[in-house]
Amino acid sequence: MPRNAFYAQSGGVTAVINASAAGVIETARKHKSKIGKVYAGRNGIIGALTEDLIDTSRESPAAIRALKHTPGGAFGSARYKLKGVEKGGREYERLIEVFKAHDIGYFFYNGGNDSADTCLKVSQISAKLGYPIVAVHVPKTVDNDLPITDCCPGFGSVAKYVATSMMEAGLDIESMAKTSTKVFILEVMGRHAGWITAAMGLAQTKAGEAPHILLFPEIAFDEEAFLAKVSESVKLYGYCTVGVSEGVQGKDGKFLSESGLKDAFGHAQLGGVAPRIAEIVRGKLGLKHHWAVADYLQRSARHIASKTDLEQSYAVGKAAVELAVKGESGVMPTIVRVSQRPYKWKIGTAKLTDVANVEKKMPRDFITEDGFHITDKCRRYLEPLITGEAFPPFDKGLPAYIRLKNLAVRKKTGEYSI
Amino acid sequence: MPRNAFYAQSGGVTAVINASAAGVIETARKHKSKIGKVYAGRNGIIGALTEDLIDTSRESPAAIRALKHTPGGAFGSARYKLKGVEKGGREYERLIEVFKAHDIGYFFYNGGNDSADTCLKVSQISAKLGYPIVAVHVPKTVDNDLPITDCCPGFGSVAKYVATSMMEAGLDIESMAKTSTKVFILEVMGRHAGWITAAMGLAQTKAGEAPHILLFPEIAFDEEAFLAKVSESVKLYGYCTVGVSEGVQGKDGKFLSESGLKDAFGHAQLGGVAPRIAEIVRGKLGLKHHWAVADYLQRSARHIASKTDLEQSYAVGKAAVELAVKGESGVMPTIVRVSQRPYKWKIGTAKLTDVANVEKKMPRDFITEDGFHITDKCRRYLEPLITGEAFPPFDKGLPAYIRLKNLAVRKKTGEYSI
Repeated sequence: MPRNAFYAQSGGVTAVINASAAGVIETARKHKSKIGKVYAGRNGIIGALTEDLIDTSRESPAAIRALKHTPGGAFGSARYKLKGVEKGGREYERLIEVFKAHDIGYFFYNGGNDSADTCLKVSQISAKLGYPIVAVHVPKTVDNDLPITDCCPGFGSVAKYVATSMMEAGLDIESMAKTSTKVFILEVMGRHAGWITAAMGLAQTKAGEAPHILLFPEIAFDEEAFLAKVSESVKLYGYCTVGVSEGVQGKDGKFLSESGLKDAFGHAQLGGVAPRIAEIVRGKLGLKHHWAVADYLQRSARHIASKTDLEQSYAVGKAAVELAVKGESGVMPTIVRVSQRPYKWKIGTAKLTDVANVEKKMPRDFITEDGFHITDKCRRYLEPLITGEAFPPFDKGLPAYIRLKNLAVRKKTGEYSI
Repeated sequence: MPRNAFYAQSGGVTAVINASAAGVIETARKHKSKIGKVYAGRNGIIGALTEDLIDTSRESPAAIRALKHTPGGAFGSARYKLKGVEKGGREYERLIEVFKAHDIGYFFYNGGNDSADTCLKVSQISAKLGYPIVAVHVPKTVDNDLPITDCCPGFGSVAKYVATSMMEAGLDIESMAKTSTKVFILEVMGRHAGWITAAMGLAQTKAGEAPHILLFPEIAFDEEAFLAKVSESVKLYGYCTVGVSEGVQGKDGKFLSESGLKDAFGHAQLGGVAPRIAEIVRGKLGLKHHWAVADYLQRSARHIASKTDLEQSYAVGKAAVELAVKGESGVMPTIVRVSQRPYKWKIGTAKLTDVANVEKKMPRDFITEDGFHITDKCRRYLEPLITGEAFPPFDKGLPAYIRLKNLAVRKKTGEYSI
């Protein structure tokens, strides 16, 4: 007898997380002897706790296909960490209660580090409570910081966006630098790992081109060395472009964005490491500057998604279902780099015990010795991940993104508040 | 005998200003009996003053064609206002000196309001100094604030970028709002006119979708009404997205965010109104917020340029040359909207005396009565301008933008410093 499946999106969404959802749903529909319906959690795991389930079987094949070109989380995602077993495990028991009520035998959790841990615990609690459930994690994070997998679905697209944006802004500033902005700063995501910042480095195809300086969270910010580098770049090329990670820290280990400095008018600098760096440049070098903060634009930019990333995102969703129907639980499909040139990849498998809560930072040899750029080794790693275009369809000049019907499944258990 | 032409880019560059350059150069190459070489000013008008001319005849047809898909200013642009006749007109005389030395009989100036004024003065000084020169302005400004022309080349592409970005970020925030960011603010350009801000409004196809609130420079910022609107949106839809113009002013007429710096034209340098709005939201409503500042990314985003805008940008360059060879001076080609549905346009002509230093703001009936969104009339105006895609070619995952050789013409006059 087929059993139903539960799928939830977790943590920060990406331009291609819905492609993983499409991979899960389309593949589950091909395994009717094992999998009945796929229920999605409305707002991620919260939908499971509150029994707010979405019946994806009510969506047409065309609608599910359209998920591949739609950013954001189509069913809603959540930043919500289940209370651990040390707190009585009540939330895990509630999950099992809801899963029992809807005959859910498969748990697919689409997220990053924390989510891998949750998925692992679901696979463990299943044995403990004597309720059989196969739990498979579907990797996703723009931060690219999951271990074992060669790269993380979601990263390649944000990488392509930030590299393209830096290249374009660089051409703009270069052409105006004679009489206008001399220093431009683009802030990108990455609280602890500098992968997204590194990706901006791909925009530079030869010396003198943007970006001239990259500031990684892995390298303590050295103001003096930074200012010397800015001055040198302005002297040599007439301008300087800086790519900075939101997570850059000073030598004291404090985030630069938390500095609490004030601008010329006495207004507090309100978050944002880019304006903080700009203020240092203005104050110490007196150069005209501009800054941009890409924020959510970078991780939702489906219009400039990487085809490689899109394909990998779909593939991990598909592979998760294939693992599940074979009964493999507590695992996660990974991306394995088979060859570099030409770039080839395949799907592998990792145990969640090896994945949960482990964070992969940039290797030191991916960053140049002076700490301000990426090495050729890093370039070789990154380049294939942004390769290929996969533009969405457009209607009246704008991307034609889909909104699903997201019809609710009738509740079978009592009220539950989180 | 054919005479040479001078072409210069002026002011802030756009994603498609080089398409106008291509229009000028390719069309000039078709009028060999009238036009010899096209010299471009390196760094705009500064290249004329310092006799730093670029010989575009040294560029291949393929290279000139590639300008159509390359953002920024391929020859360098400048924010430089020629010192007026009231200051002795020395700089205008110097221009004529350089033009004489290189037998330049055509002056093409590619810019916005200020540049139209410069172009007009060149056409006037020509008569005064008895040196015949045909001066034609090629319109360009992301601000869309030139009079007479239905729209401004460069605007449609930034409009498409900001509308797409708002739509994408909106989907992201909507899917996370249950447990994460409730209010998102995207800051865009537009010092005095809210055209770019208005374009974000196109992302909303029905009530409840992003953007929920737009803040225009034309409407004095009313903090109380704004906060009420934010609360209402969060209550109704679970989140609120705000598109804000850098030029938003308080009831006192002061910019909400002034950096204190001024540019060459004496305009205040703005930046950072998004964090200020965010601070108001946090302080008064205590809601979790995020903000983005698109800055130069928006006007250099050739990867998501509007095909309509691209075609119009090329067309005004082409038309400028066609006007010039007919001897029409002190004029500017315009975009004339011939029909709305289907959208049809043609090239018209305006006298620079009617264009120079006139700024076109948003009509009040393009903004809803409450001041927080665009009307259907505005939508009908904007929609065709962002229609159509014109993706650049890509190489290894990134746009394949061209860098010209930009070889200098041998100098014939003495040193001149600006």
